[in-house]
Amino acid sequence: MYNVAPIEVDHINEWVAKNHVEVVTTDKPLTAETVSLAEGCTSVSLKPLGPIAEEEVYKKLHEYGVKCIGLRIVGFNTINFDYTKKYDLLVTNVPVYSPRAIAEMTVTQAMYLLRKIGIFKYRMDHDHDFTWPADMISNEIYNLTVGLIGVGHIGSAVAQIFSAMGAKVIAYDVAYNPEFEPFLTYTDFDTVLKEADIISLHTPLFPSTEKMIGEAQFKEMKNSAYLINCARGELVDTEALIKALQSGEIAGAGLDTLAGESSYFSHKGISDDEIPEDFKTLSKMPNVVITPHAAFYTTTSIRNMVQMCLDDQVKIANGQRVRTIVNG
Amino acid sequence: MYNVAPIEVDHINEWVAKNHVEVVTTDKPLTAETVSLAEGCTSVSLKPLGPIAEEEVYKKLHEYGVKCIGLRIVGFNTINFDYTKKYDLLVTNVPVYSPRAIAEMTVTQAMYLLRKIGIFKYRMDHDHDFTWPADMISNEIYNLTVGLIGVGHIGSAVAQIFSAMGAKVIAYDVAYNPEFEPFLTYTDFDTVLKEADIISLHTPLFPSTEKMIGEAQFKEMKNSAYLINCARGELVDTEALIKALQSGEIAGAGLDTLAGESSYFSHKGISDDEIPEDFKTLSKMPNVVITPHAAFYTTTSIRNMVQMCLDDQVKIANGQRVRTIVNG
Repeated sequence: MYNVAPIEVDHINEWVAKNHVEVVTTDKPLTAETVSLAEGCTSVSLKPLGPIAEEEVYKKLHEYGVKCIGLRIVGFNTINFDYTKKYDLLVTNVPVYSPRAIAEMTVTQAMYLLRKIGIFKYRMDHDHDFTWPADMISNEIYNLTVGLIGVGHIGSAVAQIFSAMGAKVIAYDVAYNPEFEPFLTYTDFDTVLKEADIISLHTPLFPSTEKMIGEAQFKEMKNSAYLINCARGELVDTEALIKALQSGEIAGAGLDTLAGESSYFSHKGISDDEIPEDFKTLSKMPNVVITPHAAFYTTTSIRNMVQMCLDDQVKIANGQRVRTIVNG
Repeated sequence: MYNVAPIEVDHINEWVAKNHVEVVTTDKPLTAETVSLAEGCTSVSLKPLGPIAEEEVYKKLHEYGVKCIGLRIVGFNTINFDYTKKYDLLVTNVPVYSPRAIAEMTVTQAMYLLRKIGIFKYRMDHDHDFTWPADMISNEIYNLTVGLIGVGHIGSAVAQIFSAMGAKVIAYDVAYNPEFEPFLTYTDFDTVLKEADIISLHTPLFPSTEKMIGEAQFKEMKNSAYLINCARGELVDTEALIKALQSGEIAGAGLDTLAGESSYFSHKGISDDEIPEDFKTLSKMPNVVITPHAAFYTTTSIRNMVQMCLDDQVKIANGQRVRTIVNG
């Protein structure tokens, strides 16, 4: 196991104690320098921060008898699939590790906006204003409509929570899944935009979904609507979002992700110049709540990323089928 | 109707249209100067900001044929009950107007703390730190135990929401109510303090409950526990709370109410000197979220305060029984 973080150690030890499989760990990434650590292993497990580009790495893994590269994350664009083919290496990922982690952050951000937590704080801290004027009134969630764009593992978990809280949940997705009907009503994209008090995005990023929420979509939304994006930053046209917030086209936004975030999210000690203007503008707005792509960051997620990856490696070593092979 | 705020007008008009009862409204309070507005009325409805102290007011109401003073709030300590007795005036209140409003704020503050929204913001804004170190990890609500002190209308609404989200809910109350058992488990006070990850207070303020949460109770709690107080400020020893937060005895606090709040909550334009040091200290902590006694402030609450009060006045005028007479 390469790239092992301190927070993963307990989950690794717990798994080893149950499975009686030898695991060798290092905090280092997999490179031509570190590949020899994999000698004698049947799989390697990675959480790569950048591309694994050197052919030497794949060649050596093959020579050591490694059968599979098990990624402890969703994304697999760090892997060179010409080399995995040439050196007969399977690649697995962990496509679903905790939809609830992201769903609960979505609900948290929506409730934060609905109850005007940031605006109350701003008024108290900056204006010494502790009053409740008419425009600070809230509504209760069971009186409201939540609209979801995309209903997969995460969107359906969001729907279950809001529906359990009494909200009306409407959703648009290209796919129809009858399992979700107990807690949501399928409708079209425009109806979600027009009728929802809280609009939450849970769709993958494709060329067809990039900037799916822009100027025209903000105009369709209620002025009292809140937009939540705990999915992918590029789904939203950030410039249009800022304009919609400034003009009162919508009432607020919850963002766990922003277009262009990779230059600063997950970094620290960066200079003020390196933080983009759009982030600075949004983070100053009391009706906006931002978290740095941290919705996934729960103990359940980390445990599942570690243990689901290791489970798959054992199955592969034993010749069993797994569903997570991305180059199969 | 005295003390009528703009936010009440739609709810009054809606009620009048349904009930065909004449309602005269003023934004003024009930005083010896304004009492003549009640001439010809069978009831008056108030939302008093201070004591109704003048005997003249009660005397005149009696002379005009007013039978009842209908308070559109819970509290009735503004009324002189010697005078209501002398002048044969009933007094009603609205004891329960929207438990869900307060329950949803409780859940909002708990989730805010659990997902470290304030700490992420502080780290991004002050430290340019967008990372997720080990101590910023969250847990999912269905893995956690919510502990309630007091389970009445509000506490049980909180239990229903958290239970629907999958949390284990334990509760302490002097009274036992079998209706609540589907979504909570009754236990003793110390067990709630020791086992809960989120501790929320939903008990009235009595001499016996004042400072029920102090130094000794914070020591019993988990270091990872969050305390939520959307009930009454005086239930908590604020000095002990600040010490518990500073020493890491608990992980955070959500407060819709604070001891001594009446000098600044609901006020504006007050000088920095008038804001107490305990508020200033708490409001600077990124693991504390404060709202200015605004948990009740939803459209459902305002509607119910207006319409439930007016409903009772009609019943009283028609000789029907009501449960809300506080001097009966």
